[in-house]
Amino acid sequence: MATTVSDEQARFEGAWSIIRNELLSHFKSCGMPAEAQEWYTKNLDYNVTGGKLNHGMAVVDTIEILKGRALTDEEYFQAAVLGWSVELLQAFFVVADDIIDSSITRRGQPCWYRVPKVNLIAVNDAPMLESAIYRLLKVHFKKEPYYVDLVELFHETTYQTLMGQLIDVITAPEDQVDLSKFSSEKHSLIVIYKTAYYSFYLPVALAMLFCCIPTSYVLPNPQSANPTPVAPYDLAKEILIPLGEYFQIQDDFLDFSGTPAQIGKNGTDIVDNKCSWCINTALSIATPEQRKILDENYGVKPTPEEKQKMVTGEGMNEEQGYLGEAEKRVTALFEEMGLRGIYEEYEKNVYKKLSEKIDQIDEGLPDQEGVLKREVFSSFMRKIYQRQS
Amino acid sequence: MATTVSDEQARFEGAWSIIRNELLSHFKSCGMPAEAQEWYTKNLDYNVTGGKLNHGMAVVDTIEILKGRALTDEEYFQAAVLGWSVELLQAFFVVADDIIDSSITRRGQPCWYRVPKVNLIAVNDAPMLESAIYRLLKVHFKKEPYYVDLVELFHETTYQTLMGQLIDVITAPEDQVDLSKFSSEKHSLIVIYKTAYYSFYLPVALAMLFCCIPTSYVLPNPQSANPTPVAPYDLAKEILIPLGEYFQIQDDFLDFSGTPAQIGKNGTDIVDNKCSWCINTALSIATPEQRKILDENYGVKPTPEEKQKMVTGEGMNEEQGYLGEAEKRVTALFEEMGLRGIYEEYEKNVYKKLSEKIDQIDEGLPDQEGVLKREVFSSFMRKIYQRQS
Repeated sequence: MATTVSDEQARFEGAWSIIRNELLSHFKSCGMPAEAQEWYTKNLDYNVTGGKLNHGMAVVDTIEILKGRALTDEEYFQAAVLGWSVELLQAFFVVADDIIDSSITRRGQPCWYRVPKVNLIAVNDAPMLESAIYRLLKVHFKKEPYYVDLVELFHETTYQTLMGQLIDVITAPEDQVDLSKFSSEKHSLIVIYKTAYYSFYLPVALAMLFCCIPTSYVLPNPQSANPTPVAPYDLAKEILIPLGEYFQIQDDFLDFSGTPAQIGKNGTDIVDNKCSWCINTALSIATPEQRKILDENYGVKPTPEEKQKMVTGEGMNEEQGYLGEAEKRVTALFEEMGLRGIYEEYEKNVYKKLSEKIDQIDEGLPDQEGVLKREVFSSFMRKIYQRQS
Repeated sequence: MATTVSDEQARFEGAWSIIRNELLSHFKSCGMPAEAQEWYTKNLDYNVTGGKLNHGMAVVDTIEILKGRALTDEEYFQAAVLGWSVELLQAFFVVADDIIDSSITRRGQPCWYRVPKVNLIAVNDAPMLESAIYRLLKVHFKKEPYYVDLVELFHETTYQTLMGQLIDVITAPEDQVDLSKFSSEKHSLIVIYKTAYYSFYLPVALAMLFCCIPTSYVLPNPQSANPTPVAPYDLAKEILIPLGEYFQIQDDFLDFSGTPAQIGKNGTDIVDNKCSWCINTALSIATPEQRKILDENYGVKPTPEEKQKMVTGEGMNEEQGYLGEAEKRVTALFEEMGLRGIYEEYEKNVYKKLSEKIDQIDEGLPDQEGVLKREVFSSFMRKIYQRQS
């Protein structure tokens, strides 16, 4: 019985209203004053919901695939706690990163630190979202044999993501363009640490723990054609980290190639001096003349006159949105250097390599529990491959 | 063999240089670029050391008291890891709080976020210090039966401290004085959550876990005069939380009563609209006339003319340092209302009550392991009672 995406989402959001109330009841039971309760409620409501919920729902989806059946209501709720813990972790990162990056909006509304009265209190609100995760894990998983593994996985992923954010902010400060700091290796490192671990590996590894796939030993299947022992979490990482990297490279590429109709905005990576796949790829093949153009134009904000034109709609480019001269020059150069072709080649190759890895997964015997399933990874792949938005 | 405080401190700092290098080696082994390694090194060196180290060293001291003997080198190092984890936790709070409070200096140097190039990257640096704790616990305690208890204790304490900071910042914003938000109950809640849990209960509870004092059951001593079963962590909390509150109330009182020679600075709580013990006590006994004076003068910054006088030294008050008119009026009112006497009364009472509780502790049989010792608490008490700085 197929359910629509929005039914699935409604069910997942239904679990949140229980989890949220549980967090608020506990907060109240600590004797927190009414004002603080209101504040924490707003923090949770503003920052945790309203996103695409992809990462959180991936936990539940993966658990269903691994179990090969629909979940009982009790199982579903427990799985949703893990899903919402991923969303809480993301909210923690997002609230903090928006402060660091001086971002303006997030998910179509002002960033939390820009909400009246919040300001830098957001610096405290962010780790409160993180703390909520461990409270939830303790309440809902303490009795499980894999409780420590869950906790350690969140710790490790948090550390990795903070490391990624650190490399990102010191490599590409918005106000100080220095392309010599960029490299494809650094781009890869930033993407893997800042995004791939928490948004691709974490949801699947949580689901694997939930399904009692063992962490400490390998699982050979004597009846398989190739009974090589495999560490299942390492195997998942070997697929999901490059998949997460591919997803982010797609994002970077769409920021350059996508129309506002496709991606819901004008790309801003060039103007914002982002350490994106596009600039790193361009730098890696640029002639000295092309490098000069990049050095002079990448990360350069529109002049006041150009901004004025943008506001009044003059000089608007229907396809590419409003562009300043510097940005136009970089975009044109990216086209001239053949970034579209290079991207297509990359996408074809990564798809092939990952598909092969997925095909080699030993699924164990029919109905065998505690083993990996190819569908875990191929369902991710289907959502990502050749996406246009 | 008595060692001097500075020997003790030197040994504790010696352990840090090993712990620090361990954290940096792991960071490097994740493939972090040289620039990021330098950044993280500075983050650790600037923010973790240089404080009084009281809270961290209290872990080691308490373990020695509970064991009733000097520690082996191996035990010492493991104990020091817990001590430095408390210091890392404090560093995490301090870096974040200084951003929120727009503080200028900390421990005689600029706050981390005010160091050139750091700015709001400190929002990411703070939780990196927190993440280091769980990395250390995993490396040094995973094999211990009380590993999960350690981790959960850090989680819970972190959550409590963030809650305390939240109540504090929404109760007493520096730029918006509203004394009706204050109350002695709220002061108590702020102090307990923001300070007492992490700086008094946490170090002792960590030491108790290290010494395998059980968390889940009570420990009656059949030979004691009064073999009432007691939950040792609850008992420790019953003493240490009021002790932590007392310590903070002392701090608040010294900010008002202490001379710069005593406390190393002019008190700033009145000007900064702090929800201090002094203002809350004053509010609780103020006549309508006195309340009016408080409403009009508490949290009021010196006028530009007064600031000028302060800079040139005119109008300086040898004993009280540089004061604006509003602050002078509040200080005089505090004196008139007899805050010194009220404080002395409070101190006498809390000392008596806590001493009685400490005296009632059942120490078990001589050489019995895994029981509490009175000295754990009385050593804290001796350091605090009637301190003048």
